[in-house]
Amino acid sequence: MDPKAVRELLERVRRGDASVDEAMGSLRDLPFAALAEATVDHHRALRTGFPEVILGSGKTAEQIVAIMREIDSHGQVALATRVDGDHGAEICAALPKVRYDPVARTAVLMRRPPRRIGTAPVCVVTAGTSDIPVAEEAAVTAEVLGNEVVRVRDVGVAGLHRLLAQRPVLDRASVIIVVAGMEGALASAVGGLVAKPIVAVPTSVGYGASFGGVAALLGMLTSCASGVTVVNIDNGFGAAYAASLINLGVET
Amino acid sequence: MDPKAVRELLERVRRGDASVDEAMGSLRDLPFAALAEATVDHHRALRTGFPEVILGSGKTAEQIVAIMREIDSHGQVALATRVDGDHGAEICAALPKVRYDPVARTAVLMRRPPRRIGTAPVCVVTAGTSDIPVAEEAAVTAEVLGNEVVRVRDVGVAGLHRLLAQRPVLDRASVIIVVAGMEGALASAVGGLVAKPIVAVPTSVGYGASFGGVAALLGMLTSCASGVTVVNIDNGFGAAYAASLINLGVET
Amino acid sequence: MDPKAVRELLERVRRGDASVDEAMGSLRDLPFAALAEATVDHHRALRTGFPEVILGSGKTAEQIVAIMREIDSHGQVALATRVDGDHGAEICAALPKVRYDPVARTAVLMRRPPRRIGTAPVCVVTAGTSDIPVAEEAAVTAEVLGNEVVRVRDVGVAGLHRLLAQRPVLDRASVIIVVAGMEGALASAVGGLVAKPIVAVPTSVGYGASFGGVAALLGMLTSCASGVTVVNIDNGFGAAYAASLINLGVET
Amino acid sequence: MDPKAVRELLERVRRGDASVDEAMGSLRDLPFAALAEATVDHHRALRTGFPEVILGSGKTAEQIVAIMREIDSHGQVALATRVDGDHGAEICAALPKVRYDPVARTAVLMRRPPRRIGTAPVCVVTAGTSDIPVAEEAAVTAEVLGNEVVRVRDVGVAGLHRLLAQRPVLDRASVIIVVAGMEGALASAVGGLVAKPIVAVPTSVGYGASFGGVAALLGMLTSCASGVTVVNIDNGFGAAYAASLINLGVET
Amino acid sequence: MDPKAVRELLERVRRGDASVDEAMGSLRDLPFAALAEATVDHHRALRTGFPEVILGSGKTAEQIVAIMREIDSHGQVALATRVDGDHGAEICAALPKVRYDPVARTAVLMRRPPRRIGTAPVCVVTAGTSDIPVAEEAAVTAEVLGNEVVRVRDVGVAGLHRLLAQRPVLDRASVIIVVAGMEGALASAVGGLVAKPIVAVPTSVGYGASFGGVAALLGMLTSCASGVTVVNIDNGFGAAYAASLINLGVET
Amino acid sequence: MDPKAVRELLERVRRGDASVDEAMGSLRDLPFAALAEATVDHHRALRTGFPEVILGSGKTAEQIVAIMREIDSHGQVALATRVDGDHGAEICAALPKVRYDPVARTAVLMRRPPRRIGTAPVCVVTAGTSDIPVAEEAAVTAEVLGNEVVRVRDVGVAGLHRLLAQRPVLDRASVIIVVAGMEGALASAVGGLVAKPIVAVPTSVGYGASFGGVAALLGMLTSCASGVTVVNIDNGFGAAYAASLINLGVET
Amino acid sequence: MDPKAVRELLERVRRGDASVDEAMGSLRDLPFAALAEATVDHHRALRTGFPEVILGSGKTAEQIVAIMREIDSHGQVALATRVDGDHGAEICAALPKVRYDPVARTAVLMRRPPRRIGTAPVCVVTAGTSDIPVAEEAAVTAEVLGNEVVRVRDVGVAGLHRLLAQRPVLDRASVIIVVAGMEGALASAVGGLVAKPIVAVPTSVGYGASFGGVAALLGMLTSCASGVTVVNIDNGFGAAYAASLINLGVET
Amino acid sequence: MDPKAVRELLERVRRGDASVDEAMGSLRDLPFAALAEATVDHHRALRTGFPEVILGSGKTAEQIVAIMREIDSHGQVALATRVDGDHGAEICAALPKVRYDPVARTAVLMRRPPRRIGTAPVCVVTAGTSDIPVAEEAAVTAEVLGNEVVRVRDVGVAGLHRLLAQRPVLDRASVIIVVAGMEGALASAVGGLVAKPIVAVPTSVGYGASFGGVAALLGMLTSCASGVTVVNIDNGFGAAYAASLINLGVET
Repeated sequence: MDPKAVRELLERVRRGDASVDEAMGSLRDLPFAALAEATVDHHRALRTGFPEVILGSGKTAEQIVAIMREIDSHGQVALATRVDGDHGAEICAALPKVRYDPVARTAVLMRRPPRRIGTAPVCVVTAGTSDIPVAEEAAVTAEVLGNEVVRVRDVGVAGLHRLLAQRPVLDRASVIIVVAGMEGALASAVGGLVAKPIVAVPTSVGYGASFGGVAALLGMLTSCASGVTVVNIDNGFGAAYAASLINLGVET
Repeated sequence: MDPKAVRELLERVRRGDASVDEAMGSLRDLPFAALAEATVDHHRALRTGFPEVILGSGKTAEQIVAIMREIDSHGQVALATRVDGDHGAEICAALPKVRYDPVARTAVLMRRPPRRIGTAPVCVVTAGTSDIPVAEEAAVTAEVLGNEVVRVRDVGVAGLHRLLAQRPVLDRASVIIVVAGMEGALASAVGGLVAKPIVAVPTSVGYGASFGGVAALLGMLTSCASGVTVVNIDNGFGAAYAASLINLGVET
Repeated sequence: MDPKAVRELLERVRRGDASVDEAMGSLRDLPFAALAEATVDHHRALRTGFPEVILGSGKTAEQIVAIMREIDSHGQVALATRVDGDHGAEICAALPKVRYDPVARTAVLMRRPPRRIGTAPVCVVTAGTSDIPVAEEAAVTAEVLGNEVVRVRDVGVAGLHRLLAQRPVLDRASVIIVVAGMEGALASAVGGLVAKPIVAVPTSVGYGASFGGVAALLGMLTSCASGVTVVNIDNGFGAAYAASLINLGVET
Repeated sequence: MDPKAVRELLERVRRGDASVDEAMGSLRDLPFAALAEATVDHHRALRTGFPEVILGSGKTAEQIVAIMREIDSHGQVALATRVDGDHGAEICAALPKVRYDPVARTAVLMRRPPRRIGTAPVCVVTAGTSDIPVAEEAAVTAEVLGNEVVRVRDVGVAGLHRLLAQRPVLDRASVIIVVAGMEGALASAVGGLVAKPIVAVPTSVGYGASFGGVAALLGMLTSCASGVTVVNIDNGFGAAYAASLINLGVET
Repeated sequence: MDPKAVRELLERVRRGDASVDEAMGSLRDLPFAALAEATVDHHRALRTGFPEVILGSGKTAEQIVAIMREIDSHGQVALATRVDGDHGAEICAALPKVRYDPVARTAVLMRRPPRRIGTAPVCVVTAGTSDIPVAEEAAVTAEVLGNEVVRVRDVGVAGLHRLLAQRPVLDRASVIIVVAGMEGALASAVGGLVAKPIVAVPTSVGYGASFGGVAALLGMLTSCASGVTVVNIDNGFGAAYAASLINLGVET
Repeated sequence: MDPKAVRELLERVRRGDASVDEAMGSLRDLPFAALAEATVDHHRALRTGFPEVILGSGKTAEQIVAIMREIDSHGQVALATRVDGDHGAEICAALPKVRYDPVARTAVLMRRPPRRIGTAPVCVVTAGTSDIPVAEEAAVTAEVLGNEVVRVRDVGVAGLHRLLAQRPVLDRASVIIVVAGMEGALASAVGGLVAKPIVAVPTSVGYGASFGGVAALLGMLTSCASGVTVVNIDNGFGAAYAASLINLGVET
Repeated sequence: MDPKAVRELLERVRRGDASVDEAMGSLRDLPFAALAEATVDHHRALRTGFPEVILGSGKTAEQIVAIMREIDSHGQVALATRVDGDHGAEICAALPKVRYDPVARTAVLMRRPPRRIGTAPVCVVTAGTSDIPVAEEAAVTAEVLGNEVVRVRDVGVAGLHRLLAQRPVLDRASVIIVVAGMEGALASAVGGLVAKPIVAVPTSVGYGASFGGVAALLGMLTSCASGVTVVNIDNGFGAAYAASLINLGVET
Repeated sequence: MDPKAVRELLERVRRGDASVDEAMGSLRDLPFAALAEATVDHHRALRTGFPEVILGSGKTAEQIVAIMREIDSHGQVALATRVDGDHGAEICAALPKVRYDPVARTAVLMRRPPRRIGTAPVCVVTAGTSDIPVAEEAAVTAEVLGNEVVRVRDVGVAGLHRLLAQRPVLDRASVIIVVAGMEGALASAVGGLVAKPIVAVPTSVGYGASFGGVAALLGMLTSCASGVTVVNIDNGFGAAYAASLINLGVET
């Protein structure tokens, strides 16, 4: 039951075409239906310009193509994450307007550049080269969501001077996403340098006692630096989404 | 906004005392308020006779007394779980009608016996004497919720003959709650004997590789016997509540 | 030693053809043999119409075919779970009456529809599309065991309105099976809406800190909603079996 | 070597009182000393008004008093967390201007109200009563840091209607801190309702398979709702600090 | 229904006092009752002289005294384990014939020395002084069960020469119980020296990454030496019981 | 320096061909060399007839062939474990006298049947069909080491009657090896039926919360039945070796 | 800003070509730039002759070749670790001077033998043949870094005599690297024999409760032998690097 | 059998007072006895001046006093670790020459200052004040073993400038012990600054996801900085002992 239907019902009550009892009966199921409606409206309004997101892993290329087509037909931006190279090629063949990024493993279908959000860039910081795919998932997502993105690479804690040399860049950002695997310490170090919201992404890179990202995750959760929050292992997308909501706040 | 208010609003629309626009405005916040109302109604109806439950751990005796008094004043049954002996004594001193059970560590305030539910008893089975407190939490809860309860004790897998001797009792039950610590195997054994819904409760009893109930929990989750479902470690209350919902189904 | 043999022995004692000592000797081994017999009888009676179940993983297609043939020759229903696509095709080629479901990964051989059990449907609820295979294992199993099955899909906690819109469906069910991976919270949310027995199935879907289903499992075990019990990760079959035993109780 | 010293050195070079070689020697150690200086300056400037924080656990009341006095003598605000009741009483006896909060277990010494930051409140949401101490640590910290704070309590996932009724409050916040123990699902549910940055705090409340907050932590990390980031178990302070940095961004 | 009752039933059938149908009815319940009987008989015969064992932890001194009295009144030996000093004193006061061992934390009530079993001693080997309580629980249990016991102490892997000097003693044993905490390696080292059955007991002694005995447990389970089997952490009693069953085999 | 060399040295001292100082120098290195010698002698004597064992996993077929040839050339029996089918075929092609067992994944090269040890059989008990490969590794190893082996299959705890029917077989054994995966409870159940040394082998069979054998391992370690000891997950060889050492004791 | 630029700036101040204010402005960014410079200088000096290291896993052969060429063009030694056989062949084809070691999985490009460091060898000790790849990674790394390396193999704790026979070799070393998988006990045993710095490397070799090297890791961390420190699972390179720094100390 | 006894035996053989056969018999047990002797000699020589160490935890004050007296009577230094304040006072009362350190929780009895070892100091670095007890255990142990010790405190990664300011101190050390709890990252940061052997000690300080030191332990094991090795959680003594062995190498 959408708002228009409620209005019509009320009109009919006003005109005497429907009794109060009949109207009560019609409204009885309103809460659930209306809530669904309201929530959707609310979100659609709020997220204007934000892409619909497709988790690519576990889906076939055809399934992704079909969903992207559907989203695109509604005039919205479609972002697929965790799309491997083979799938990426198939998707691009089917939908030539899709831009596929083999490092970030993202596929994006958008007709015009996203509306810019925030007044300062999101900075994506990585420790090692093997953390770059997750960092790029974050960076591409943040760009598609409308943020300016600055990348700072190869600044692990084991070479502090390289990190220190980047402080001016960090200082300019509104939010900093720190992506690090074995060396989860990077989030603490960045948090010790600048007083900004930091979203830390542990990566599953590494071997032995890194336990698929658990060592980095624990290191980030127990970070002594204030202002650090953490997302799931390898969740570059989630970090970028959270950063975008923060940046959105800065703008308004 | 309760149903009465909605009816009044409709009456005012019908009488022309309120415009459709005004009514739309008033209904705009309906979903959330109405939902809350509806849910409460629904649950109150459904749970008639079921007690309000207070998790005693982490509360002072006075806090428990205050909540029980409040519940009792609405004519409902109050059940507090995880109430240690000292608190139990204080509660009974303040509320003489409360029955405190030192083994189950439950305190119950009810003015009349609960309405009987189900056509067959809930059977509570324990392996060792140290599992009895959790089993009694389950048994007392099940009784307060209106079930007939049968207790079967000391039938661990390491003495199979004692369990086998109890099969007639198990066969009569509608649901069986199996409470076992180190020897989580009891759930499998009971499940291998009778084709009944079994709710398994691992207990934190034991030492070493029992890891505070984890060994029993894993054993119950990986049980080869069909029909076994599991609740949290030491959660006698939860098992009894689930068993009561199952037994309630039998009745209607 | 079957009942007939015992009867014959007693007849011989009555006729004087066997001494009491001889009979005692013959009966000495009775407990174990008779118990086996009794248990089998008991179960066969109780489970009439319930299928014999074959865990397909780790078996060759030929092995599954052979076991299904054997079960079918006794007039019973055969249900094989965890059968991958290649094996499914081989089995169907060998046994054309087998219905193979590529999503549920089940193979069923039954000559007539199962006897209907329960007076209300089993409802199978899923959060995300990647949970559907496990949910279908549960749904197909429940159908083969004789339950009416209703499927509710795509109602994760992160989109509460979709779940709320399904409350009428949930209210009609006798048992609800909730299948959820990363978002194990769905079991709590469903349990907060309806007062029904809920069997929760964590799935191994997800990455990072989902740890192959452990996050969902822990979330379900620690659920604050009353009436939730849990089965092993990905154990759709086990959930359906437990739900059927509960539903069976409703019927009688 | 502070900036003044560098300036003097340059003046001496300019006047010919120091050779270039001598100046090079003096500057050789500059990087480390100057960096320390710069960093301190930077932070002091940035954090103006933010309190100096003392982790009370593991310190004696006298130690806390001494540190608070020192901080106060520099005109800064002192905030001590994890201060138990006995220590709180001793501190208040020694420093009568300290406000001690027995629920949040915080002690605050500030001479005037903090400068207000942000244009919208920080909302602190809790599931159960046992999560309130951690939530209050977050709320008091956020207040001392200058945020307006709104508290929303008792809105666990097992009673969805109560949460839904609070959506207007959530919609007004700039950042939402969700504090939840066994039922870590609350972060997902809130994230599913509103498009705001959410900082989730798992609490160590609970028993059995809650494993001292691990179940809630995993549930929050694997949340399907976008925009959720996580801090350490029971780290109410850290959540408030991160929320303040986010809110600070909104303001500027 | 005991054997005597069966015999009487058969006599009544033989005399014509009971019909075959009546006898069939009476025998219908035989399996379970008879099995219980048979199992008890069997075990009583086999375990002649073996004590009844009481797990002292979680029981009051009075409870232990009552159980010991009951066991003693049947002429059997009573062994209580995990009895702390206070309980030990109370038990000895109530039952002067009890021998309490404060290191092993065992209380024994036996009227005469146990029948000697095995033709060679059980050797109990310990690495450090903090492992001695668990080792003594094993040693006292083994003695009460009738084994000759030899103790070898302070032979950790970090001082290999001390272990090597004890090889003649190890060579004489029928079974070797190795008790070790942090240094679970001792089981491998002993297994590398002598070709005997080795029962390894990890102890919860240690700190940090010993994780309450888990490090020792894993070390013993992954031992490269052949012939090593493992019991639960701190389970000195269980090791001695298993060793006694092995030694019993040697004797017969 | 072997005993012969020591004797020669002493002869030279006696004859005056070597001074005491020279002899002291020669003996200085004696301990280590002699110990090596002694240990080897000792073991060779003790293990007469026991095969040399090759862990096949991680070795090429050629490597296994080479080691087997070497062992065979010394007149000893060679047993290779964890040999997959392809390697087995290559080994048999190179060494036609090798017997390869595709279920147990063992390859054996022996010229004559092993010397029989023990006066009673080793009994190998399995719960499910998927545990059979590990059970056969144990059974074949035990046979090659000279034990009579009896196999008892498909006696899981979920079908207790099948286990009970096998008690006479269990009663005849000297040692019982229990191999079980998800249902680690079988060790407790067997231990509850017979008073024999039981060596339990958890298997990595299963899914979800079986965690690659950890659930079975914990269940076996916390078994309430006395006399149960445990070896590493899937370590059929180790169980058979320990059982053989126990059985060897029975013989002498 | 490099030292030369600072000198030029000072010259300009001295000559009056730059004001003190201008110079202050230029120096304002000095700390970070200069620090980077200083750190690099420092390290270059210290590590003279130490190779640049490339972690081969996760890189293509071409990437490795490109980096090696770059390093070689600066006259430095290039060491790539974790290079599998296929990559090794490709690298050697592209860079014929590279020496590839298929066991250690290392590729080395150096124009002359490394400068010898230390006055005593690094000893690399292994328990089993499956630990050899990790041990060789350590040995080759240590050689490339300039150490004399002695290998001691097949000296597991389960055959103590073989280890004891090697004591003279161990006594000669300056540092001992102990590489062991299931049998992590070897580090304790070596530490019990000689008073030398021991760097222990757990390996992921093994099955079941070895948990991918965790059992060995815990065993080494809880070693009772003094002087043992531990590196990450399978981290042969890290052990060799640490050992080289220790050996370097011996030299100076 | 000590060397003197062997010499006497050889003399008797030389004189003809003992036959070669008799001597062979006497020497038969030589390896084990002699090995013990040799090992002890070897260690005593090597460790000259190194204290005998007593692990105080789990011992009574009297036991510690007795052992210290015994050690002192042999002219050796006695060091007891993990001695709490009450025990410390009792020990000092009994042995006035003992120096007790309440922070390090060490008690030392030595008649003269230790022989100085190494040519450069051991540097002990701590992140937070709560890490100081473990750091002091390391520092006091290192001093008693003869090292010069330099302490660097409060240099956590979250305040990088403080660490950078200490580089000259770090550069002077021969070995660096890094003690850090939640912020295990400090080991990486130090390793990134200086090319020295670093022994990292994780501490059990912290809450939540620090899991009693596991987060710091994993962080240190997966450190990206070369040259870092790790000891057990809270094992300040072990770190100092390893550092001393390294420093000893520097000296010779």
